[in-house]
Amino acid sequence: MPISGNVAIIGVGVTRFGELFEQSYTDLLIEAAYAAYQDAGIDPSEIEAAWLGTAFPQLNALLGDDGSSLTDPLNLPNIPVTRVANLCATGMEAVRAAALAVAAGEYQMVLALGVEKMREVSPRGSLVARHITETHPLLTKGRTAPGMFAVLANRYFQEFGYDRRTLAKVAVKNHYNGSLNDGAHFRKPITEDQVLNAPMVADPLGLFDCCPTTDGAAAVILTTTAIARRLKKDYVLIKGAGVASWGGYFSVQFRPDFDFLGFPSTRAAAAQAYRQAGITDPRRQIDVAECHDCFTITELINYEDLGFCDRGEGGKLITEGVTTLEGGLPVNVSGGLKATGHPVGATGVRMIAEITNQIRGRQGKRQVKNAHTGLAHTLGGPGVISCVMVLGR
Amino acid sequence: MPISGNVAIIGVGVTRFGELFEQSYTDLLIEAAYAAYQDAGIDPSEIEAAWLGTAFPQLNALLGDDGSSLTDPLNLPNIPVTRVANLCATGMEAVRAAALAVAAGEYQMVLALGVEKMREVSPRGSLVARHITETHPLLTKGRTAPGMFAVLANRYFQEFGYDRRTLAKVAVKNHYNGSLNDGAHFRKPITEDQVLNAPMVADPLGLFDCCPTTDGAAAVILTTTAIARRLKKDYVLIKGAGVASWGGYFSVQFRPDFDFLGFPSTRAAAAQAYRQAGITDPRRQIDVAECHDCFTITELINYEDLGFCDRGEGGKLITEGVTTLEGGLPVNVSGGLKATGHPVGATGVRMIAEITNQIRGRQGKRQVKNAHTGLAHTLGGPGVISCVMVLGR
Repeated sequence: MPISGNVAIIGVGVTRFGELFEQSYTDLLIEAAYAAYQDAGIDPSEIEAAWLGTAFPQLNALLGDDGSSLTDPLNLPNIPVTRVANLCATGMEAVRAAALAVAAGEYQMVLALGVEKMREVSPRGSLVARHITETHPLLTKGRTAPGMFAVLANRYFQEFGYDRRTLAKVAVKNHYNGSLNDGAHFRKPITEDQVLNAPMVADPLGLFDCCPTTDGAAAVILTTTAIARRLKKDYVLIKGAGVASWGGYFSVQFRPDFDFLGFPSTRAAAAQAYRQAGITDPRRQIDVAECHDCFTITELINYEDLGFCDRGEGGKLITEGVTTLEGGLPVNVSGGLKATGHPVGATGVRMIAEITNQIRGRQGKRQVKNAHTGLAHTLGGPGVISCVMVLGR
Repeated sequence: MPISGNVAIIGVGVTRFGELFEQSYTDLLIEAAYAAYQDAGIDPSEIEAAWLGTAFPQLNALLGDDGSSLTDPLNLPNIPVTRVANLCATGMEAVRAAALAVAAGEYQMVLALGVEKMREVSPRGSLVARHITETHPLLTKGRTAPGMFAVLANRYFQEFGYDRRTLAKVAVKNHYNGSLNDGAHFRKPITEDQVLNAPMVADPLGLFDCCPTTDGAAAVILTTTAIARRLKKDYVLIKGAGVASWGGYFSVQFRPDFDFLGFPSTRAAAAQAYRQAGITDPRRQIDVAECHDCFTITELINYEDLGFCDRGEGGKLITEGVTTLEGGLPVNVSGGLKATGHPVGATGVRMIAEITNQIRGRQGKRQVKNAHTGLAHTLGGPGVISCVMVLGR
């Protein structure tokens, strides 16, 4: 049976995100898994298979390079534990792999876990990173993530008449939401003036237009809908799971539909997920969304690629407050990558956890009213890979 | 529906394995994919999702670090392309991920492809590899793959009374088989004397006890059994797919059942696959096998872990010729990793291709008679991860 409607999330666990010098990669992984076990009301021995999402094992002495980084700390020998990696979509890909296995009926109770430790790296890891930076044919020419997304921001301004003040509204919204989230990396509201006066990173993206690198882990427990119902769990269903990839930024010559104003992979992934979930009008049918706001400009572009508004209308959506916590389509009520932080392998799993708990009505100060159907979206590359999941009851 | 019996392999493609300076990572990938398309009799546009197995992207400027390394060269935009990594089991894990997705009914025609380019690495790749070797806490202490497996060989000799001549018989058998395989890295028969007089690598493993590092790619096309039957394809079914991981060598303190004479992960993975495939007596029910002979000692240990003989009887099995091409249970008739070579991400997929074509009766000079049920096994770690698949009609 396909994933849609047949796979249930019965437990989620998310560590605090931030600069967690006091916790190792393995500490974070264990904390997230046991939080998810507890939430699901299951014993660890019930897990039949697991998927691990870590994007950058080289940052931590190759922890996360294969499944055994999860097997041993969680004591899960003799069962399949598989690593999945797909850039910034790594975490959501781990959830999708687990969901496919449940949908196949191959396993009935599985774990998907994403973890990344980025603020404190081993001497070897950091040296390798430095070495790559020093010798990479693009990185040495000044290619950085802010630099790549800055190009989109400038073109967006030129095409549609927005400016840095529009982007600042995204930062202000997400930092405010992060102030309501005890687990967020940044937990203080900021003002538009602070955003506009912050140091420039890559024009027009300033410091507050960029998400941080972060330590953290997140886990979800999946089972079949039939089992979730029988066990009377407070479950949420995966209604759609779409993925699309292409060479993105680095193979623009192959994609005439890449105009530096949106990502074809997000549009393709959303189309798949919407078809599976029966979403024909996301503006009305999606009640809450987490999307990949690695930079403020990315959130606006995501609005458009996800069909939350027409092309060029992303700036209008944020300006009109539609995507605030009290708006008609709240986006990144967790604080997003912008304030929650971005431990790459964990991010997609954290989004799924956030939307699950929104639909369960458990998110306290940042709870969205009437959150029946939610969306989670991660983007890597930029534009190389995009995952979209739709969750509901 | 579970994988067993419901997922069919309808096409396979394997490049020549070897020192392929004239072909890039991408060249190899394309060659394997198009060979598989042709074998399956499908058009590339029919592919609905794909999985890429590459274990070491850092060897080739991060090619294979995410799915887009496959998306662009094969022109597969707008569909899911996911990278899977699990050490030396990476390729077979890609096949398993694809099989789970077909079993779920999520996609009907999918591609699993493994590729690794190890003989010619980019300056950056080789520098990173050198840097890791120079700074890694274990590698700097002399920890190498031959060194780790040599410990098992010495213990095996001590416990069961075998010596280097027993190991040499594995090398002679697999090099002979490789001489029948035009795609193998090494295609010349060797003698026991040559093996015994070759330079020592890590006592008691000499040069011919070790498999090479290799360039190569392999691909398989999977669909549902119902579709394979309807399209009248010459298909082979996946009857069982088991995986198990643990910290292996590096966390022996957690596994009292690891005695340096066998790998618990292989025994667990085989138990899963046999249960799914209804194999109760592998010695009688398996007609042909490809197993992970990274070193000659590993093949003997695999015989025992896979249940082809009792503990301590692996040496007897090779000595009696049971596992030769003409024997009762031919093992590594392709030449194995030993002679075919070991492009890590490709190896598991190549094994699946070999067993598929053995069951189809297409392997010419190295065809095993009455090959109805076959087994493929990859091991990484050592012992960290093991995959076992059983194929049949």
